[in-house]
Amino acid sequence: MRATLYGGPGDITVGERPDPHLEKPTDAVVRVTLGCVCGSDLWYYRGVNPHALGPIGHEFIGVVEQVGVDVTTVRPGDLVVAPFTFCDGTCANCRAGWTGNCLNGGSFGNHGVDGGQGEYVKVPYADATLVKVPSGDYSDAVMKSLVAVSDVMCTGHHAAVSAGVKPGDTVAVVGDGAVGLCAVIAAKRLGAERIMSLSRNPVRQALAREFGATDIIAERGDDAIKLIMNMTGGLGVDAALECVGTGQSMATAFGIARVGSIVGAVGVPHDSTVPLQTVIFHNVGLRGGVAPARRYIPELLDDVLHGRINPGRVFDYETGLDDIKDAYDAMIDRRATKALVRIGV
Amino acid sequence: MRATLYGGPGDITVGERPDPHLEKPTDAVVRVTLGCVCGSDLWYYRGVNPHALGPIGHEFIGVVEQVGVDVTTVRPGDLVVAPFTFCDGTCANCRAGWTGNCLNGGSFGNHGVDGGQGEYVKVPYADATLVKVPSGDYSDAVMKSLVAVSDVMCTGHHAAVSAGVKPGDTVAVVGDGAVGLCAVIAAKRLGAERIMSLSRNPVRQALAREFGATDIIAERGDDAIKLIMNMTGGLGVDAALECVGTGQSMATAFGIARVGSIVGAVGVPHDSTVPLQTVIFHNVGLRGGVAPARRYIPELLDDVLHGRINPGRVFDYETGLDDIKDAYDAMIDRRATKALVRIGV
Repeated sequence: MRATLYGGPGDITVGERPDPHLEKPTDAVVRVTLGCVCGSDLWYYRGVNPHALGPIGHEFIGVVEQVGVDVTTVRPGDLVVAPFTFCDGTCANCRAGWTGNCLNGGSFGNHGVDGGQGEYVKVPYADATLVKVPSGDYSDAVMKSLVAVSDVMCTGHHAAVSAGVKPGDTVAVVGDGAVGLCAVIAAKRLGAERIMSLSRNPVRQALAREFGATDIIAERGDDAIKLIMNMTGGLGVDAALECVGTGQSMATAFGIARVGSIVGAVGVPHDSTVPLQTVIFHNVGLRGGVAPARRYIPELLDDVLHGRINPGRVFDYETGLDDIKDAYDAMIDRRATKALVRIGV
Repeated sequence: MRATLYGGPGDITVGERPDPHLEKPTDAVVRVTLGCVCGSDLWYYRGVNPHALGPIGHEFIGVVEQVGVDVTTVRPGDLVVAPFTFCDGTCANCRAGWTGNCLNGGSFGNHGVDGGQGEYVKVPYADATLVKVPSGDYSDAVMKSLVAVSDVMCTGHHAAVSAGVKPGDTVAVVGDGAVGLCAVIAAKRLGAERIMSLSRNPVRQALAREFGATDIIAERGDDAIKLIMNMTGGLGVDAALECVGTGQSMATAFGIARVGSIVGAVGVPHDSTVPLQTVIFHNVGLRGGVAPARRYIPELLDDVLHGRINPGRVFDYETGLDDIKDAYDAMIDRRATKALVRIGV
């Protein structure tokens, strides 16, 4: 099969990989239809974070081709969403709902597991990992939203859930990348009344508004903090969602977080620190991390299929598999918020 | 009146201060019967943290002497517990339950407000701040527990509440000071089944066991982490309570925290940092801070009066007001876990 291969910093190619086949009775082989490029892939591409050489990509949807004898929840021909991490569903962490921290799991496209930026993926623990999409004739827009549900929508949702967003809240989303934009959707979905999106990009500002943002904050750093504190009567927001992972974004989130609130953080940390004085003297908590996507997918999928949320709108660029390097470059150059990759049909 | 005066690092004396009098209709004047020395007082005494020159001390119980015309919940002659911070009960933070972060409040014994290590205290917002103890003939042991409820018991409780301790949990308490010991009480009170107390002091180990600790961990740092991970089947504890505030204690708490759990931190931070990689990749949260003591006191007071908890057992040293410097020194020299100061009757 053809698959995207990571060859080191700056080195993304498409080449041949062995066709995957069932190895364990709990495996399934999925033919990938749509994949995409994640912000975290860019950290590897830039050489900031390490990644095993070989297959890459962890967000995809596809059609089941083969299933092992023990697989009962999906059949060949089923359309499925894969969470970005596979999980056994039975370990202590999975049983506690932390499927992204499965003791026997891992991320697709790493450590020898097939990547979602290739034609086929052998999915371990297929019953516990894959979520079947009910049969139907779905539009391309819905299909894109299903890809978004494999990671970014779950991750934005995790920021909101971690911060405890509840009906009536005032929420600020720090970061206007695909995850931040999905966090706007998530905040709205959980009932937030006022949603501030920190963005200075007109295209993303418009999408944030479409997703439910009531206020766009173009300021950054201390200016953003001052403005938001003024907008909230000096109290700060009920929930600050940190969707970037830099020092400035973390400082901003803590700077605008109301006493007793929780910063929901999902950005992969790069040179960021937690202001412990704010934690202790303002009682501002911190929760978040790798989203338990498998746990979240069923409810988010349902909202997608009923047209209540449209996270696929974050895709503003697309390529085929052979041109995937262009997708990486478009995101690196900030020509794209998030790039879809059409791999199969 | 006579009161303890902070004159700078190492300078604790007892001197004369003007007798407090009612200034506002919401004030009360309380005659202090029992006070004590807090671990945070030692940071001032050591010169590590700043403190205004003048009165000091924020933990006390006493008898109401006078009340302003607007005060309705306490009367002269009432025995009262003062939370370590006063609060108006009406600001946005108080209404949200964060009484220790009252927008018009502050800490006793700071910024010109009388300290609890003196004969009298003018208490602002008496209705919102003070908690009346039902009339009764209480033992000295109960009285000591009431003093503990003014701060350390609430602070230990806040660590446990912040970490979300629930029935059946395995909890580790990092720190065997008065707050850590009270956190053991709090964990037990909230239903923890297994409580590990990190302590290498035989006296404190014995008290931790008396309070409900099921395991004593004498190891520190990486050795403690290894041991506790082994004791929990490699998973870590359901709740790690950080009751010290140093870099090592924070690292230990995060090192033993189970995926998806929350570190409950109440130690005043000194050179400690939050391991963000653990937050993000293990989904370990952080909550805690200055305890909302006024919110917690009623329920803890009830438990004290019914003999269900005995936090006053943390006092293992006592002096009169005139000898209070000895109380500071005993704690500095670690001859005392926590020193009671008998000020009036």
